Amino acid sequence: MAAIETEADFAAWMGSIQARVEAVLKHSLPGPQHAPARLHEAMRYATLEGGKRVRPLLAFAAGELTGADAGRLEIIASAVEMIHAYSLVHDDLPCMDNDVLRRGKPTVHVEYDEATALLVGDALQTLAFQLIAEHRLADAPGVQMEMVRVLAIACGSRGMAGGQAIDLESTGKQLSQPELEYMHVRKTGALISAAVKLGALCGGPCAPALEQYAHRVGLAFQVVDDVLDAEASTATLGKTAGKDSKQGKPTYVSAMGAARAKAFAEELRVGAHAALDSLGGPTQRLRQLADFIVLRKF
Amino acid sequence: MAAIETEADFAAWMGSIQARVEAVLKHSLPGPQHAPARLHEAMRYATLEGGKRVRPLLAFAAGELTGADAGRLEIIASAVEMIHAYSLVHDDLPCMDNDVLRRGKPTVHVEYDEATALLVGDALQTLAFQLIAEHRLADAPGVQMEMVRVLAIACGSRGMAGGQAIDLESTGKQLSQPELEYMHVRKTGALISAAVKLGALCGGPCAPALEQYAHRVGLAFQVVDDVLDAEASTATLGKTAGKDSKQGKPTYVSAMGAARAKAFAEELRVGAHAALDSLGGPTQRLRQLADFIVLRKF
Repeated sequence: MAAIETEADFAAWMGSIQARVEAVLKHSLPGPQHAPARLHEAMRYATLEGGKRVRPLLAFAAGELTGADAGRLEIIASAVEMIHAYSLVHDDLPCMDNDVLRRGKPTVHVEYDEATALLVGDALQTLAFQLIAEHRLADAPGVQMEMVRVLAIACGSRGMAGGQAIDLESTGKQLSQPELEYMHVRKTGALISAAVKLGALCGGPCAPALEQYAHRVGLAFQVVDDVLDAEASTATLGKTAGKDSKQGKPTYVSAMGAARAKAFAEELRVGAHAALDSLGGPTQRLRQLADFIVLRKF
Repeated sequence: MAAIETEADFAAWMGSIQARVEAVLKHSLPGPQHAPARLHEAMRYATLEGGKRVRPLLAFAAGELTGADAGRLEIIASAVEMIHAYSLVHDDLPCMDNDVLRRGKPTVHVEYDEATALLVGDALQTLAFQLIAEHRLADAPGVQMEMVRVLAIACGSRGMAGGQAIDLESTGKQLSQPELEYMHVRKTGALISAAVKLGALCGGPCAPALEQYAHRVGLAFQVVDDVLDAEASTATLGKTAGKDSKQGKPTYVSAMGAARAKAFAEELRVGAHAALDSLGGPTQRLRQLADFIVLRKF
């Protein structure tokens, strides 16, 4: 009974954060009444009503730990989500992963066209930084500039974009586990870690143990993604399943097999919890999110 | 004799700023010793040793007016130039202008590949914001956050990226002069204006007359670009000449004819000077740049 109550409470909390972030995104993305209408429409198509909003949830959970104001958290969470949305639009382009389905809908270049998809990604990245610059997110402006720095490092050539480049170079190759980890820490882990760190920074400093939690959760996310790509259906995922092996991409499943990949994800989940043990304050949401990320089915 | 001396002095000033910005760019762009090597190499290929560096020159000239520190100016100028370089790489992609020559060299997607060119642009945009966040560029941190905002607005969906979207939509159409202006104020003008404004902000507030100067110079730049595209050779330009009419793009030349386009550029040049008349302080470089932009042959 208690477990069911906790689960319902967690689902309600997730729903409230998702709704909150959706509202900020809706408000922050220019509408089609502003020129260029088609670009703005496509930016909304790429960002709104989609995804689990894992990064915003992590930002809010981390912010709870530092007593961050929810008004600040919804901004930083939306900025991170815009970066995530931009990366998906560009990753799906024909010259990259060439995918036609995302979040259960045709990808942006399929629904609109390639040039529009390119500009959608470009402009979403910009808007993320604009959003941070237009709101007060920390007591000291120096901390807010640090937020710009954290986000930029996470999505730049030694973070997300760099991970994507390594991913492309690795297609058709068999990577060792350390090599895979090196790639995924950048490609997926960097932005997930940034979400945690930025959420915390809205309320105070980010403890090293929290960074460790973020690192483990970020890696676990990708391991589980690899498992789901191999085992779940396109309908469940809302994106093309089985794509990694079809494209010859090295994954945790191809590197260590599905069973060991699952065990590794579980290890990371336990490690994420362990990192939180040293922290005072409310860590319940962070713990629930670590479980959610590893135990999810989509 | 005095005119020749002034010209030599201006050329020397330009050379010194160009060298200074080149050094900052070289230092700020990760080298190929950092993974992913190919991405970092391509980012340097796209950014270094190229172009007239008009935006950095404008930033320095505007900064002279507000007594800005040169150490700050070289950073903000480099950030703006990174944004400019990113926009060129993406604009040259096959799904956009599909060009093979830029700054006298093969474009990034020709020299490397499309996916790398996409990521080069993405990561250069990020690095511009990172650069601002990593240096102290104003006395008050609030002003520095304002710089992030100014740059983001200039290159976002209602600035540069938006202008590019309008450009794509307009291919094959005949635009009126106000429609052309609307497009170019965004596509080229926004970042040029931002360069002026950001340079000024390194030293103090940006006067409205200086913003007016920036607007006129930004528009003049594009009008002259259209004339050069129609009249100069590929060898002189270092990029494919005659492309606009070939691609059916509306330009000032197609809208009003070459003679009237030249007269309009001259009008804007005179207007840019007039805007400076009300300003105290050293405006010589700004005046020389307005002349340089309108009277250039490449």
